[in-house]
Amino acid sequence: MTTQSEMTNYLQTFVEGMISSGVEQAVISPGSRSTPLALLLHRQEQIETFIEVDERSAAFFALGLSKASCKPVVLLCTSGTAAANYYPAICEANASHIPLIVLTTDRPHELRQVGAPQAMDQFHLFQHHVKEFIEMAIPEGTKVMLDYAYWQGMRAIDTACQTPKGPVHLNFPLREPLLPDLNRSLFAERTTEIFAGKKQLSEKQLIECVDAWQGKKGVLVVGGTHTPEEAAVFIELAERLSWPILSDPLANITSSSNDSPLIMRYADLFIQEVEMSQYPDVVVRFGMMPISKNTMFWLQSLNETTMVYFVDETGEWQDQLKQTQVAIQADEQTFAKEITERIIRRTSDSWCNQWIDWQETTEQQLTELSEMKTLNETTASILVHKKMAKKGQLFVSNSNAIRFLDRFSTPDNNQYQLFGNRGINGIDGIISTALGVCATNPERQNVLLIGDLAMYHDMNGLLLAKRYNLPLTIVLLNNNGGGIFSFLSQRQLEKDDFEPIFGTPIDLDFSLVAQLYDAEYVKAESLEQLELLLEATQKQPKFQLIEVIGDRQENVLLYERVVDGLKEKLGKNK
Amino acid sequence: MTTQSEMTNYLQTFVEGMISSGVEQAVISPGSRSTPLALLLHRQEQIETFIEVDERSAAFFALGLSKASCKPVVLLCTSGTAAANYYPAICEANASHIPLIVLTTDRPHELRQVGAPQAMDQFHLFQHHVKEFIEMAIPEGTKVMLDYAYWQGMRAIDTACQTPKGPVHLNFPLREPLLPDLNRSLFAERTTEIFAGKKQLSEKQLIECVDAWQGKKGVLVVGGTHTPEEAAVFIELAERLSWPILSDPLANITSSSNDSPLIMRYADLFIQEVEMSQYPDVVVRFGMMPISKNTMFWLQSLNETTMVYFVDETGEWQDQLKQTQVAIQADEQTFAKEITERIIRRTSDSWCNQWIDWQETTEQQLTELSEMKTLNETTASILVHKKMAKKGQLFVSNSNAIRFLDRFSTPDNNQYQLFGNRGINGIDGIISTALGVCATNPERQNVLLIGDLAMYHDMNGLLLAKRYNLPLTIVLLNNNGGGIFSFLSQRQLEKDDFEPIFGTPIDLDFSLVAQLYDAEYVKAESLEQLELLLEATQKQPKFQLIEVIGDRQENVLLYERVVDGLKEKLGKNK
Repeated sequence: MTTQSEMTNYLQTFVEGMISSGVEQAVISPGSRSTPLALLLHRQEQIETFIEVDERSAAFFALGLSKASCKPVVLLCTSGTAAANYYPAICEANASHIPLIVLTTDRPHELRQVGAPQAMDQFHLFQHHVKEFIEMAIPEGTKVMLDYAYWQGMRAIDTACQTPKGPVHLNFPLREPLLPDLNRSLFAERTTEIFAGKKQLSEKQLIECVDAWQGKKGVLVVGGTHTPEEAAVFIELAERLSWPILSDPLANITSSSNDSPLIMRYADLFIQEVEMSQYPDVVVRFGMMPISKNTMFWLQSLNETTMVYFVDETGEWQDQLKQTQVAIQADEQTFAKEITERIIRRTSDSWCNQWIDWQETTEQQLTELSEMKTLNETTASILVHKKMAKKGQLFVSNSNAIRFLDRFSTPDNNQYQLFGNRGINGIDGIISTALGVCATNPERQNVLLIGDLAMYHDMNGLLLAKRYNLPLTIVLLNNNGGGIFSFLSQRQLEKDDFEPIFGTPIDLDFSLVAQLYDAEYVKAESLEQLELLLEATQKQPKFQLIEVIGDRQENVLLYERVVDGLKEKLGKNK
Repeated sequence: MTTQSEMTNYLQTFVEGMISSGVEQAVISPGSRSTPLALLLHRQEQIETFIEVDERSAAFFALGLSKASCKPVVLLCTSGTAAANYYPAICEANASHIPLIVLTTDRPHELRQVGAPQAMDQFHLFQHHVKEFIEMAIPEGTKVMLDYAYWQGMRAIDTACQTPKGPVHLNFPLREPLLPDLNRSLFAERTTEIFAGKKQLSEKQLIECVDAWQGKKGVLVVGGTHTPEEAAVFIELAERLSWPILSDPLANITSSSNDSPLIMRYADLFIQEVEMSQYPDVVVRFGMMPISKNTMFWLQSLNETTMVYFVDETGEWQDQLKQTQVAIQADEQTFAKEITERIIRRTSDSWCNQWIDWQETTEQQLTELSEMKTLNETTASILVHKKMAKKGQLFVSNSNAIRFLDRFSTPDNNQYQLFGNRGINGIDGIISTALGVCATNPERQNVLLIGDLAMYHDMNGLLLAKRYNLPLTIVLLNNNGGGIFSFLSQRQLEKDDFEPIFGTPIDLDFSLVAQLYDAEYVKAESLEQLELLLEATQKQPKFQLIEVIGDRQENVLLYERVVDGLKEKLGKNK
């Protein structure tokens, strides 16, 4: 049998492999079978460890850490259902390309399929939602097996970090006794360097694009999640081409302080309302489809005279409209920069002026809303956007929160960074993910904009804020239930059908939740008060819960008033 | 394309198929894609529906409903990570043979693998942890497809209910528009009868067992989960054979009011301490290995002169000791009754008297503990057991709670029913499962014995108690962290390694949790006070949280004091 010392060497060498490929953080959930790996990670100076009892929250927290740091993050738990709690975050990580390394521990082979306690089949536990599943060998102390352990640690991290990034799962069968030899010196003895190449087009391919785009009526559509630095590259490309740029809030184009008139902030509001006399010759899409349903319907309405280019470094063909005529499988940033260098700047023309006009008309129509003095979910969301500090981090929940930002984000803000979980758009794990982002840059202003159902779904995550003093400001839009359904076809239902299944009020006193987790609590009574609170958090971040009482019906009425006004001013139904 | 009316007919016919096979309850989580199924289930008179926003809690609640009712229960959610939240409860249901029918809704084929929002690969989402995965056809209104929908509903339920019972997963691709035609009459038009047979041995096989057991020195070992009625059958068999019966708490043998001296209540305490001069000729095991590690080690120490019979209706060979010499693949209850009928009652003898002596010596040794007047986790657990009302329902959490009951359950109690999640023994989903059990018989006394980490892990489940007025009495053993590790080898660690990774204090004020969910809260200050509270709940069940402050070290010291005393009194180290 393997000795304690051999087991320790094997697992420590695995950890050294991970460190060699760049692991700096691990989130551990307590358990017995995972004991040796937990202790080795905890003792490792190069690795910062966090502890969270609820594995679901632990996994979303790791997701947030990795989102903000752009580095791989390790997860570790014991055997059994513990690992199954990771599943929602793993699905999200896989869809949004976040490199999580999931370490589960397991009974050894002789205790499988025989009814041993806390044992279940952990092979391919996460199905196709991880890039790779690795069943590790039982620890052994031979040179061959130490090389193997190092190699698996090193390449698991690298696999997770290769484009398209994503989660990798390693399952460790471990025998008792489970305590490692903590007297072994713990430092990385071996390293491997990785020079990672990127997919780039040839000069000939680039020129073909330049020739097809230069001087044409075009539109840039930027989806996916981008840093402010990456966002600037897309804006520069749009400026050079003199094309309007439609984007997702998470692309961080509308949250940049850039006031280029080509940034179509309100596309969701006007794009379906305008009388379009000219259609684009070219549409160039980067990454996922933006959140705006109206933008999607507009793209769908284009006929085949519009050439659609889809820049997709993942090669995953994520074009739900199946319009792509030219697929560009290359690193998005490198490609955008190379095209920008090769395009001759174009003076503005009727094509882009038309878009700028629509944008300005919409902005005027929004004046009423942005000058509104009453506090509601819409005005609160607009204010959060306006009051983000330079380099602040704003996490937006799914359903309504991100849609408010998508529709109403004005240009008068600092450059901040917007985050969200838009791989699969769940309302689960939002608090924990936001706390992972906050933990990466706790000195900055960190705000979470969230509804009451998402808040309830991941309340356990707040323990992380309490344990690690994470200064997150939570702005809770509380309309006591599922606000999104009032915007969808379900609203046609009778109240007896709607309220219990879609409205689902939960009637929770969130001031108690704040108290439970040592957050400061304020119920915002006015827009001025909210403004002061947000300004204070720009200077002094702290863990607080600001509750804004909303009304599901009011959200819809405000939205409809804007759209009705636009219908009158802009073309179609004039 | 399918019309609204055709879609409604197809899905309603599916629901009718499920009703035909005995579905009476469904737990629904709100979402958009699941709209037509949610509305049809909600409108169905034969089906009681519950709503829960957190799908993880929803699934464990369904697990509890099915545990207590012994009937299939339906789960329904929308697409995406929502479904992944079901995974922990599904793994547990699969391991503990609970018939959940999991309905997930999905984008239709044309919106898959193309980046459509809230879409992910839901094929075989739950891997080998469901008995069957069914990808349903897109709704169509032809007779062939209505027959198909009925058939899949009917047989999915029946598949889940066949031995070994377990979860079944059906994935529904649904196209917009999602609102069904609610004017269609909703009643079950078609039924199918099922006469389900059970595995039974032939007379020849039965007589072979009788001949091998009659008059021999034997031991019955009963694991798994059983109703009090089933437990009585095992006790009757032990009485007839004059054999001691070792069991798991969930077998409900020690919670029966039966005072047969053959029920070895304290086996975990004495079985490793006694000087055993005679070894059994025969061990007959039913179902899973009981929780007692000492019992398991004792069984492991038997040599090959002991014949081991393993009665296992599932055919899953869940014998981690691999000792089985005769595998009896037949319905456990039928088999036990048939053997009992054929055995000639034996007068007691030295074999069983020896066991009865050990048991009595242990009971004396426990006097100090059971007469202890101070309140601690151990005395509180013993008291909960003593104060269960006749037909009361006690749910015990994993880790320490169930072990206290296994070691210290005295015979002076009413016959009540014990429940737990012992498929994979997770500390997740405990509150929700207990509430599912409570919802099935809310008029009875319903108690949950739980530690603070398990309580924290599933706090969201409390919303179900609030929403549906479920009168659960929660006895919270709060030692501020992971108490089980103080009983395991991890306790040898230095405090700097132990506390952050295994101790994991969470410092929560649970009175706030009670307030949040409208539960009455009492911090028990004395054993007398706890006694009065438990007696009150026998008469008037209500939703309350009784907190007992514990100390991890004290639990270990009390346990060791008992075992040290036994070592002196009983053989080995005398």
